[in-house]
Amino acid sequence: MRIVAALGGNALLKRGEAQTQAALAANVVQAATVLAELVTAGHSLIVTHGNGPQVGLLALQAAAGPKGSAQPLDSLGAESEGWIGYLLEQELANALPPGMEIATLLTRIEVDASDPAFAAPIKPIGPVYDETTARRMAAERHWAVAPDGAYWRRVVPSPAPVRLLNAASIARLVAANTLVICAGGGGIPVARDAAGKWRGVEAVIDKDAASALLAVQMQADLFLMLTDVDAVYLDYGTASQRPLRQASPDELAAHAFATGSMGPKAAAACRFAKATSRPAAIGSLRDAVGIVAGTNGTRIG
Amino acid sequence: MRIVAALGGNALLKRGEAQTQAALAANVVQAATVLAELVTAGHSLIVTHGNGPQVGLLALQAAAGPKGSAQPLDSLGAESEGWIGYLLEQELANALPPGMEIATLLTRIEVDASDPAFAAPIKPIGPVYDETTARRMAAERHWAVAPDGAYWRRVVPSPAPVRLLNAASIARLVAANTLVICAGGGGIPVARDAAGKWRGVEAVIDKDAASALLAVQMQADLFLMLTDVDAVYLDYGTASQRPLRQASPDELAAHAFATGSMGPKAAAACRFAKATSRPAAIGSLRDAVGIVAGTNGTRIG
Repeated sequence: MRIVAALGGNALLKRGEAQTQAALAANVVQAATVLAELVTAGHSLIVTHGNGPQVGLLALQAAAGPKGSAQPLDSLGAESEGWIGYLLEQELANALPPGMEIATLLTRIEVDASDPAFAAPIKPIGPVYDETTARRMAAERHWAVAPDGAYWRRVVPSPAPVRLLNAASIARLVAANTLVICAGGGGIPVARDAAGKWRGVEAVIDKDAASALLAVQMQADLFLMLTDVDAVYLDYGTASQRPLRQASPDELAAHAFATGSMGPKAAAACRFAKATSRPAAIGSLRDAVGIVAGTNGTRIG
Repeated sequence: MRIVAALGGNALLKRGEAQTQAALAANVVQAATVLAELVTAGHSLIVTHGNGPQVGLLALQAAAGPKGSAQPLDSLGAESEGWIGYLLEQELANALPPGMEIATLLTRIEVDASDPAFAAPIKPIGPVYDETTARRMAAERHWAVAPDGAYWRRVVPSPAPVRLLNAASIARLVAANTLVICAGGGGIPVARDAAGKWRGVEAVIDKDAASALLAVQMQADLFLMLTDVDAVYLDYGTASQRPLRQASPDELAAHAFATGSMGPKAAAACRFAKATSRPAAIGSLRDAVGIVAGTNGTRIG
């Protein structure tokens, strides 16, 4: 099967983990080991990944660096594609049989400059703060901040992905049996200006939304979202929480999920399953083989 | 003709220019405009670029960011491939006729972990300092520093590139008439450890050396190094300086050039011309069309 496998932010930085290169590298090794099992089982993979903690860290580093040198969010997103993409490519090369080709492509994704998402930042990036610290940093740095679980985080606009601008190259490499890493961090968001020129925009596209678009366009047989929970749960976090094993897109869409976590995954799953009549699945990275086999996770479609 | 065009660091940040995103973006627009002329003239391009100022800036930002979060040089190099590659891809998309495919690939390059270059850092990265500041920062940050023209800069090891690890994907896209941006910053330096696993190494490969290797492997008809001087000069900086218009690899190799600037370009030109019996050329970015036509710059071969 051709599988688009989207690695969640929590697959790259575990909840509560300090954000160090060592932690990222160790998590990437784990992810690569699991992904390699899918390749060994005969599947063809296109790998995408989140960048929320990493692009937020790069923004903090850029702001702390030499005066006037800070990059805007689109460039920081591109940097995160380089950084995380490289580590993933390297550990996949270590985990896969020799001779398997791997390529990491930068991925520019068109967004609509008039997307209402620009006026309502919801995508959390960077580390967590307590509310007082978050509000102070928001005032000092002109950030938007919002609660994320028990903590607070910086939030940035997250416009909908409209069009992959590097799809032909991705498709060409996939057709040649190359394991392609792309659309990292949801892709680099760009839009045409009034003169028709491409310009980066200060935003972070949701990586599940971008991955769904990619999975549709690459005619994936399965769209797999790998995170740190073992299934989609109904009434999550309450006494009556229970895993959902299977749902149609319409059944899934009838449930309400948190906007910051399961919501985008559920929406992306519905989008792919409706557009293609092929299944999407959501579950834990460590269960990836079982999710593909249909014995673990939540299957939509 | 198939041309590998290597953009020098001075094509991305002019000498003496403050390192801001605006300066980088403006220089990238200029470079893309010139490169687009070559495409319009019917040539097929593979574009590489330096990253000395940019990877040095990323290192300063990383060191100034949250404690314990700093990335090593290989990851910073990967980030610079994302950052600069994205800006180049975007401005090439703006400068080229619609429908022209462009792809930016991360490029891991194997180096020899026992390369003597690791013991003798010579590659300047980041901003220039006066000698006192450079020596102070070297002591504080455990840097090596060295003179670079009238100033001082941080220097890092620059091992020789041994093998492009993403060559098959680059070749596949080039064969499909895609304008490929790759080997940015000389590629991401990696080596196998004792267990045979790929590991990043803390170094910056010379981008002209990496580009020569790429040009040989991609069977380029011309290897073009674009910088901010209009030709290779003999006795550069003296009263008797004069441009060299044409030389065989052996003639060029007989001259001595500064290790930090023209030396690596001359060596890369010789390497390509000797390996392929096809020409290399060195000159000013703004003269690129004339250099390809043979009316400007220095031609080796």
